[in-house]
Order: sequence, then C-alpha cells, then structure tokens
Amino acid sequence: MVHPTAKVGSGVQLGENVVIEPNVVVGDRVVIGHNVVIREGTIIGDGCVIFDGSILGKRPFRSAVSAVTEEKQLPPLSLGKNVVVGANCVLYRGSLLEDNVFVGDLVVIREEVRVGAYSVIGKGVSVENKTTIGKYVKIETNAYITAFSTIEDYCFVAPEVTFTNDNFLGRTEERKKYFKGPTLKKGARIGANATILPGIVIGEDALVAAGALVTKDVPARKIVMGVPAKVVRDVPEEQLLERQSFYRPDE
Amino acid sequence: MVHPTAKVGSGVQLGENVVIEPNVVVGDRVVIGHNVVIREGTIIGDGCVIFDGSILGKRPFRSAVSAVTEEKQLPPLSLGKNVVVGANCVLYRGSLLEDNVFVGDLVVIREEVRVGAYSVIGKGVSVENKTTIGKYVKIETNAYITAFSTIEDYCFVAPEVTFTNDNFLGRTEERKKYFKGPTLKKGARIGANATILPGIVIGEDALVAAGALVTKDVPARKIVMGVPAKVVRDVPEEQLLERQSFYRPDE
Amino acid sequence: MVHPTAKVGSGVQLGENVVIEPNVVVGDRVVIGHNVVIREGTIIGDGCVIFDGSILGKRPFRSAVSAVTEEKQLPPLSLGKNVVVGANCVLYRGSLLEDNVFVGDLVVIREEVRVGAYSVIGKGVSVENKTTIGKYVKIETNAYITAFSTIEDYCFVAPEVTFTNDNFLGRTEERKKYFKGPTLKKGARIGANATILPGIVIGEDALVAAGALVTKDVPARKIVMGVPAKVVRDVPEEQLLERQSFYRPDE
Repeated sequence: MVHPTAKVGSGVQLGENVVIEPNVVVGDRVVIGHNVVIREGTIIGDGCVIFDGSILGKRPFRSAVSAVTEEKQLPPLSLGKNVVVGANCVLYRGSLLEDNVFVGDLVVIREEVRVGAYSVIGKGVSVENKTTIGKYVKIETNAYITAFSTIEDYCFVAPEVTFTNDNFLGRTEERKKYFKGPTLKKGARIGANATILPGIVIGEDALVAAGALVTKDVPARKIVMGVPAKVVRDVPEEQLLERQSFYRPDE
Repeated sequence: MVHPTAKVGSGVQLGENVVIEPNVVVGDRVVIGHNVVIREGTIIGDGCVIFDGSILGKRPFRSAVSAVTEEKQLPPLSLGKNVVVGANCVLYRGSLLEDNVFVGDLVVIREEVRVGAYSVIGKGVSVENKTTIGKYVKIETNAYITAFSTIEDYCFVAPEVTFTNDNFLGRTEERKKYFKGPTLKKGARIGANATILPGIVIGEDALVAAGALVTKDVPARKIVMGVPAKVVRDVPEEQLLERQSFYRPDE
Repeated sequence: MVHPTAKVGSGVQLGENVVIEPNVVVGDRVVIGHNVVIREGTIIGDGCVIFDGSILGKRPFRSAVSAVTEEKQLPPLSLGKNVVVGANCVLYRGSLLEDNVFVGDLVVIREEVRVGAYSVIGKGVSVENKTTIGKYVKIETNAYITAFSTIEDYCFVAPEVTFTNDNFLGRTEERKKYFKGPTLKKGARIGANATILPGIVIGEDALVAAGALVTKDVPARKIVMGVPAKVVRDVPEEQLLERQSFYRPDE
C-alpha cells in the first residue's frame, strides 16, 4: 500500500506487504524489504536500505504515568543518504539520522535523537529521546543509551553497557530538575557491561574498562576500572584517537 | 484478514495486513497498527492501542529439553481498558494486563503473567512465565524478569537489571524444587544493571544501588550497594513511598 | 507470496502475508506463522515451526566502517528437522541450525554460525558471526555471544551475560589480528550478567558465578566469583556433567 501522496524516487525496490503512508518521501535507488511500515511524512534519502519488518516514523505515545508528559509537534523522521536500517527496528518520528549511518537489527531509536554521519548503532540498542550522537560513533549490541545523553564524535560503547539518568530512581518531584544522562567527550570509550551513573562526564579519549561502575567523572585519556571505578593508568599512546588511521580531524 | 467469528467493537481503527484470528474480541475505539497479529481468542479492552508488528496471544511452545515440560490449557490473553502495546512485541496466551498498562516496543511477556493497572513495561523487557507484577510498577529497558518472580505495587526496576531463579544453573534434578525468582516487596527499587540471585526478598521500600550483586535478603527501607551488596544506609525520608505525590494507599 | 521456484513439502501450514522467495525449500509438516519472510534459497527441514514475524535468510550488509570488510558467497541458511524459531527473529544466510534446535523470540543469529542439535537460544539473544555452538547448549535471555566465540556441548549461559572479543575497543590496526571471543569448554556454565573478556578459556565443567568479571582463564571444574573473578572452590560433585541424567556421552 503506497499512499498516492507519497513521493517515491526512481529505481526504488519495494518488498511485499509494504505500507507507505501519506506524504512520505523516498529517494532514488532506495531498497525497502518486505513488511516494512513507513509512517506519515517520513523522509528517506537516496540509496538507503531498509530491511524487512522495520517501522519508520512511529509517533511517541506517553504512558499516563510518564515523568515527561509534554506533548508537542515533532518533525518527521529523516534519514540522510545511504543509511542502512536492519530488520524489525522501530525508529520514531522527530529524529534525524545523517548520511551513511548504519543501524543493526531490532534497534529502537526514540524521538528527538540525532545520529551523526557514519555512526553505527548495533543490534538491539535502545537510544532514548533527546539524545545526541556524533559522527563515527559505534554503539554495540544491547547497549542502553538513556534519555538526555550526549555522545561526541568517535566514541565507542561496548555491548550491554547501561547509561542512567535518574539518581532518585523515580522518587521526589525534585528529581525532574536533575534528569541527565552521561556525556561522552570526543573519542571516549566504554567497555562491555559497564554502568554509568547519571550526569557523569567521561573525558576526551578516556577509557572505562569492562564491568566498571562509574560513579565519578573520568579525566581525559585515563583508564578507569572496578566497582566503583578508579583511575588505574593512562590510555596507551597507540590507542589514542589522534593515532588512528580512521581519524579525520578536519572533516 | 479478520476472521468472521471475531467480534470487533465500534470506532476501531485497523491498519494494513492485520490478522485477527477466530473468536478474538476487540473493544470499542481500539487502534490497531499495521502488520499486527491477534491470535485465537485474545480479548482486547476498550480504548487499547496496539502498535505495528506486534503479536498478541502467542501460544507457548516448549523446547524438547525444557526444565518445565507441563502442558496445559491456557485462557486467552486478556488486555483491560486503555492498554498500550508498543511495536514488534510478543505477548503470550494465558496472561492478563490490567487497565492502563503501558508496554514499550520489542517487549516479550510470557504466559501466566499478571500485570497490575498503570504499570509500565519498558522497551525490550522480558517478563517470563508465572510472574506477578503489581500496579504502578515501572520496569525499564532490557530488564530481565525471570519466571516465578513477584513484584509488588509501586516497585521500580531500572534498565538492564537481571533477575535469576536457579542456583544450580541447570544441573541436578533436585533444583526443580527450588526454582524461585526474586520477590520485591511494595515500593522496592532496583538500580541499573543490578543482578538479583534466586529467591531473594527485597524488603518494602528498600533500594538496591546500580551495579550491585544481591546475594542476601535486603531489609525494608535500607540501601544496599556493591558486589556482593551490603547495607550502607537508610533510604532518605523524602524518597519513601509514603512521601510521594503519586502514591495512592487507599486505591 | 510463494515464489514458483520454491519447493514446499506436504502438510505445510502457511500463515497470512507470508513471503517465500525463489529457491526456498520447505520440508514436510512445517508450520509457518503470519508475516514470516523466508529469503532466497533458505532450506527448512521437516517438522520445523516458524512463529509470526520472523525473517529467515537475511543477507549480511556490512557498514562502511566495519572492522571486518571481506565479502564472500554465503551458502543459504539451513534448518535441520524439528527446529523451532520464535516470533520476530532475524536469522542470517550462511548459518546452520541442527535438528531440534529451539530459538526463542526476538533472537538474532548472524551469518557463519553453527548451532548443534537440541541447543536452546533464549529470547533476545544475539549470536554474532563465525561462532560455533555445540549440542545441548542453553543460552538464556538477552545474552550477547560475540563474533569468533566457541561454546562446546552442554554449556549453559545465563541471562544478560556479555562476551567480548576486542581488548583494544576499536583502536589500532594491530587489534584485528587478535579478535577472539571466549571459548567455553564442554559443560562450562556462566552465571547471570557475568562479563567474559576476549579470548578467555572457561575450562571443562567450570562455573562462573553471577555478576563476575572474568579476566583470566578458568580451570576445569572450578568455581570463580567476583570482580575480577577468582577461584573460590570446586564445582560440587552432584553438579558435574557426568552426574546429570541428561548427559549422553556416547551420542
């Protein structure tokens, strides 16, 4: 079902049982798998690939008891050029994925999220609302990126990492003033299954070891480790961002 | 495909490619997204919203080597009024979601689960069979609620929390007598990425800190922390359940 | 939509909106749910059950910045006899599931994976590419099995466990020589939410306690515990694999 008000570019491949709602814009040479749903107004750039069963442009629907109850107009979901979206994903209205972003299978990206060019969002990752992700970032399988997080360019988040944003665990009215996810400065890296407490800042090119519980800010270019995490040494020279062949400081 | 024996109320919106099987009952003003599957006999209350790609009323199918091999008749899946179910979820036959429950995207709720009114089950959560969840509970993204767990009213479970129910990790026949998930007493809260061992009781209004490994019962209104978790102090007065504006003790 | 070049056996049940692509082979008495997609060439053995919304035979699509960029011809996805695949799963081309494998809901199994007979892959598990899993293995909910892992017969992996394969967290060219997931020797067991560092070998019938961070190889039949994990005692006699009624050493 392609709605007559949708604009579909040239050379587009459409799978079976695809639903394209009113005012959707699909660029040239886009490949859309079977059972894909593209909700009203979504914009898909040239050369994108959308795998089977994914849902693009879902409108948020707040629970009656949500801590964040504001309602507002959201712009449509927008994908740049050559974005790849895996199978059975759910991407919300009001977000923007820049050119060449790669999204794995079963990913949820909520509303008001921006993902920079060439970033990779791994299988099963959840990116909550109002989060900003830079370019050339990698977020790996099943990591949880909470609302109000900031992840700058070239960061790396390993599998099953947990970000948090509420030190009051759902209690007190006051807490709503303090909701704040972690901030990862440029090139920061988080090891597998680590947990980052609300509002923590991980310094530029710092490294959090696997399994760590980060309760304090981490200085730039330091490695922290343990429960709770403590500084143990400097990041080795050869692992610094400026030494990597893929780093493009002038871009 | 709406089976002729299904009863569909007034003012219902049906998406594309929806499958409604025999003897399903859909209340008034229900909104059903695209590619939704509603299996035989499922009951959906007035005002529910079911997002795209979700599967309601799946019958369990045990593996040949499952520790729990009993087979029995299950009643249909039943949703109360104004229940919201996110996209690409799988809800099993034999469970009951009371009025105003909110279920995020990519959630699995197994058979013989009861979820109380106004509770929120976050994105990617798994609620295993034979689990009871009270009202006004919040379970956040990717938490794992094992079989035979009990979560009382007003509890809070943060993202990526893991509940366990088998101290024998799949060995000995004897273990089947001891399968038991955690019990969270009224208002208990569990921090992000914590792990709770089998049969542990978290006392009323107690708090488990992020990243903790809970190996012993937690007294009421105490905070525990660490690996293994130890009592560190009392829950602050202003965070106690009785002090919260959303608490309705007479309901 | 069943492509005319697909071969469908006798007594097959097909749901609504099913897509079966060219050259697929479906055995006798297979049950295929609604909205299932079976991609080109996939082979499904007699007696398999595929639940609603699953996608079989997805072709991998590497991101532009993937560390593993080789492209090659993959054989079709192949399922043995009586394999069960849950709802909304994504199974890739180039993998093999032997007879009687059971796959839960929302599972992703990548390309070049082999899963042995009677193994169980729980809900939400990710099995990455180039991983080998033996027979009678259980991998539980939301566990993350990284690429290049080896899991021998009769192993057990509890919920939310994280395997890792890159000690360099995405930095240095040199690291690509060292990519290596964990190896679980026959009968090894990993407790809930544990984290296993790259290349670690868990000895035969050894046990990693819940929440542990494993940074060194674990000797056979020992229990390790803690962050970082240390040997604490022997696995109890009655829990050894050779004492279990389900163990079939001659098979």
